[in-house]
Amino acid sequence: MTKIQDEFSPFIRNIRIVLVSTTHPGNIGATARAMKTMGLCGLALVQPKIFPSAEVTARAAGADDILAAVNVYPSLDKAISDCNAIYATSARSRNIQWPVVDPYQAACEIVEKAGRGEKTAILFGRESSGLSNKELELCNTMIQIPSNEAYSSLNVASAVQIICYEIRKIMLRQSGPESPAEKQTTIVDNAQMARFYQHLEQCLGDIGYYDPENPRLLMRRLKRLFNRSQLEEEEYNILRGIFAAAQQAAKRKQD
Amino acid sequence: MTKIQDEFSPFIRNIRIVLVSTTHPGNIGATARAMKTMGLCGLALVQPKIFPSAEVTARAAGADDILAAVNVYPSLDKAISDCNAIYATSARSRNIQWPVVDPYQAACEIVEKAGRGEKTAILFGRESSGLSNKELELCNTMIQIPSNEAYSSLNVASAVQIICYEIRKIMLRQSGPESPAEKQTTIVDNAQMARFYQHLEQCLGDIGYYDPENPRLLMRRLKRLFNRSQLEEEEYNILRGIFAAAQQAAKRKQD
Repeated sequence: MTKIQDEFSPFIRNIRIVLVSTTHPGNIGATARAMKTMGLCGLALVQPKIFPSAEVTARAAGADDILAAVNVYPSLDKAISDCNAIYATSARSRNIQWPVVDPYQAACEIVEKAGRGEKTAILFGRESSGLSNKELELCNTMIQIPSNEAYSSLNVASAVQIICYEIRKIMLRQSGPESPAEKQTTIVDNAQMARFYQHLEQCLGDIGYYDPENPRLLMRRLKRLFNRSQLEEEEYNILRGIFAAAQQAAKRKQD
Repeated sequence: MTKIQDEFSPFIRNIRIVLVSTTHPGNIGATARAMKTMGLCGLALVQPKIFPSAEVTARAAGADDILAAVNVYPSLDKAISDCNAIYATSARSRNIQWPVVDPYQAACEIVEKAGRGEKTAILFGRESSGLSNKELELCNTMIQIPSNEAYSSLNVASAVQIICYEIRKIMLRQSGPESPAEKQTTIVDNAQMARFYQHLEQCLGDIGYYDPENPRLLMRRLKRLFNRSQLEEEEYNILRGIFAAAQQAAKRKQD
């Protein structure tokens, strides 16, 4: 497992995929493979119907290190007892009592937590019936994969693949280990973004811009745009510089 | 198939998943399932080793309409003869002669083409050996899924799942059919973005901003940021309004 862990260590040690009462051993193997392709390694099984088995190993297709390190638990609460945050994946549901995020947002949050040393568990339920209400009560957040409303029946290993893929994309953006030729980039943090929006708002006031249709919505819209963009340090500095130049231009006018 | 097609019609009719010489019938079924969960429906098989079979149907898990509509071809060129663009998925490779894009970029391009009525084929090669050089020569663009360098062995249906997931995310962003409460958004097109960058550059000149470290890189950096953000019409209008206000402020100063 060393190779995988080293790639994004210590991030990935803090991310655990938890399969709850998986029926088909093939899905456990396929999950291990999906995780390893995306550089994750922490797999926990809660009451698997069949494990280990030849089918698990066959479908893992070489992700044997993930299987060798699997922890098997008699109950879900034991599998997640040391975790700070619990995410559950779900098919679309109309009556959800948990905060709902999409896979991208979940990946952002999970990687951020992992970077802070917080452990996250991501739960995947039974093939037939998902997670029970009692199991769902242990969760903080639901991840809703945007699937076809008429057919949302993702295979469990496919769901793991999508979540791990989003996590990997975020990890790659933050650490850039795969493009050594490119300059390493840092995504600005929340405190910087707070200063960014304060500066932007002052700048808009100074140059006399307001949204004629709905002035109160303006900052919310701009926040949505720039939060989505995940500004890199360099871009942040350029934009702050542009705000300052615009303020300067407006100020000179007033002198 | 009506339900699936209707969801994003006519987009999805222009997107074809092509499995080339698939060995394991389970992977064909799993591919059909992966496609249907993401609302795609056009599956073509080139010389499958076993098709149809009970294992295909079992792993399709209800995506029978996709299987019923499958076209089987004796050669790859016949399977893609009516397509305008051919993408191939690949494991990481150091000597690639094709333009390489990531799944997100590929999805943007493919959905844009589909919206223009252009047909795209996305090729997935053999489990053991991928696509041959002769098959690769038929492709325009390579899609590189950002996988673990030490273990990039994605299952073929998992690779299909990731690509279809990215395509679905773009389709949802462009059409918003799943969040009817939200206002429908339109991503601005390339011609609008060209005007946007022209306006931004003029504005930066007017307010006297330049990147002291490397003035020639400035617009390239800003383009990278705003291209990544995929501006919606409303955001585009707000930003154009801000540029105009900044120019106005600078101009008043000169008067």
